[in-house]
Amino acid sequence: MSKKNEISPARKWLSYRPEIKVLDCTIRDGGLMNNHRFSDEVVRAVYRACVEGGIDYMEFGYKASTESFPPDEYGPWKFCREEDVRRIVGDNDTDLKLSVMADVGRTNYKEDILPSEESIFDMVRVAAYIHQIPAALDMIHDAHEKGYETTLNLMAVSTIPDYELEQGLEMAVQSEVGTIYVVDSFGALYSEQVHYLVRKYLDFAGKAGKRVGMHAHNNLGLGFANTIEAIIEGAELLDGSMAGLGRGAGNCQTELLLGFLHNPKYRLRPVIECIQNHIEPMRKDLLWGLDIPYMLTGFLNQHPRDAIKFNTTEDRGNLVKFFDQMMEKE
Amino acid sequence: MSKKNEISPARKWLSYRPEIKVLDCTIRDGGLMNNHRFSDEVVRAVYRACVEGGIDYMEFGYKASTESFPPDEYGPWKFCREEDVRRIVGDNDTDLKLSVMADVGRTNYKEDILPSEESIFDMVRVAAYIHQIPAALDMIHDAHEKGYETTLNLMAVSTIPDYELEQGLEMAVQSEVGTIYVVDSFGALYSEQVHYLVRKYLDFAGKAGKRVGMHAHNNLGLGFANTIEAIIEGAELLDGSMAGLGRGAGNCQTELLLGFLHNPKYRLRPVIECIQNHIEPMRKDLLWGLDIPYMLTGFLNQHPRDAIKFNTTEDRGNLVKFFDQMMEKE
Repeated sequence: MSKKNEISPARKWLSYRPEIKVLDCTIRDGGLMNNHRFSDEVVRAVYRACVEGGIDYMEFGYKASTESFPPDEYGPWKFCREEDVRRIVGDNDTDLKLSVMADVGRTNYKEDILPSEESIFDMVRVAAYIHQIPAALDMIHDAHEKGYETTLNLMAVSTIPDYELEQGLEMAVQSEVGTIYVVDSFGALYSEQVHYLVRKYLDFAGKAGKRVGMHAHNNLGLGFANTIEAIIEGAELLDGSMAGLGRGAGNCQTELLLGFLHNPKYRLRPVIECIQNHIEPMRKDLLWGLDIPYMLTGFLNQHPRDAIKFNTTEDRGNLVKFFDQMMEKE
Repeated sequence: MSKKNEISPARKWLSYRPEIKVLDCTIRDGGLMNNHRFSDEVVRAVYRACVEGGIDYMEFGYKASTESFPPDEYGPWKFCREEDVRRIVGDNDTDLKLSVMADVGRTNYKEDILPSEESIFDMVRVAAYIHQIPAALDMIHDAHEKGYETTLNLMAVSTIPDYELEQGLEMAVQSEVGTIYVVDSFGALYSEQVHYLVRKYLDFAGKAGKRVGMHAHNNLGLGFANTIEAIIEGAELLDGSMAGLGRGAGNCQTELLLGFLHNPKYRLRPVIECIQNHIEPMRKDLLWGLDIPYMLTGFLNQHPRDAIKFNTTEDRGNLVKFFDQMMEKE
């Protein structure tokens, strides 16, 4: 009855694709839940887990401009000064590469991002909305000239019309950028949409010799599933965070990603140890993870800010009230 | 650059497939975490939410034999006596169909399952491991003769070799069964495996005019994602539970499933209200949901019993200890 010669796709998984790289963004994305005020102890534990777990990149936070963001209102990982990072990693004499994120319009990049030979960082990731592409490409040019690996993280892709996205990708592939990211900021994408988007990105990026990356959120509980879908379609740089720590519903879980990938260099135990001792203890204060308010903003393809705000009020847990509030706004 | 005529698969989702049905198994699968001791208030609230939410089927529990299972050790939903169910639903004068599960070898089905015209139930679901197929088909024959809709829930499919599975499906499609379920008991399947299995099931079931169903677990956080994958491949009967309540890591969440399906008869608000008032308050005692121990049994393709047991000991939260314990067993 069934096709006897058909090979289960599952069987292909006993091998692995060495070009696939994992970036742990626990401290960077998690910092959005506590204004980047992680203790050195936590950041050091995540760093060590990344090194021991064989993870490829670790992202510490943002290169935010101190003119736009008063330093006394944020922890050190909003600014990622060289001396703060070196206090954690020394000279980072490991195989782990370090990355930092720079938001368009919020970074004094010409001054604050040093030439790479003077910097502890290996990669600069530029986060931009679609209308900010020209500014983002200028930042990427600057970082590339200074000797960094670069990525373009095109945010909120679930809200970008196709014709704009194609224009943006066309511009991006003509730049020096190394990797272009599908960023599902609202956690609103289903697997078929991820499939479609990664293919479209690769249509542009592949010919230009650039990688495609995936940054997924868990508003619909699909962060890991969508990252797998992106892998299947050809994405090679994958973001995860330990226990999913990240804004709102959080991210694809690094531990799930490492368990899924069959590259023998990845080790789960140090990551689980870090989660147990350093990440889970923060859960009661930071309130990240899948819940109904984040699910609703995901279904509505909206920024999770209303849900994040609701979860900090005394109405937290009044799910019906949040549902009614969101429906009224429609 | 990209194929301009290619239509995003996402766009097809503005319509819906009316043949897709949702079965809520909150009380049945959740009962595995509390020996089926839900209060009438909780069962009634779930029933009402199912009715108001436009859900197609609700499953109450098991038809367990009182000879094998002493009634004083279990709540009423282990046995689902007619009078217990009627106390909740009256004559169930609604569009919601009611189902009950019968395990091979644990049900005195010839006596305990009444002719359907005398019963409150509409559907009997027979749960069996692959080696129990002959007994399961006898139970299905009995239920069919008595006038019920029937399903065969072939458990732990992630452990069944292909040649056995094909034999089992061949036997099943020659029976009176209405729906054959892909049951990922260990929550161990990835989307590509679901894709492969649903296609294989449909190779057999489709020609015989039978439906394929999907029952997914969340050990790897993929319950909802795998249910979507099953829908894409043609599954038509889908299990979910409110807030994912179910054994171990729990099930595909009914609320996510309803939000995903575009059938206008489904309504999310009554389900969210039930979750807020009746399901979430049980979380601190019942301890279901995605966590690292369940993830590990999922990766190892094992029954979650070791993780469930570990989570009830004082070692709960000592994730590294559980990791080491499971690796030692390998």
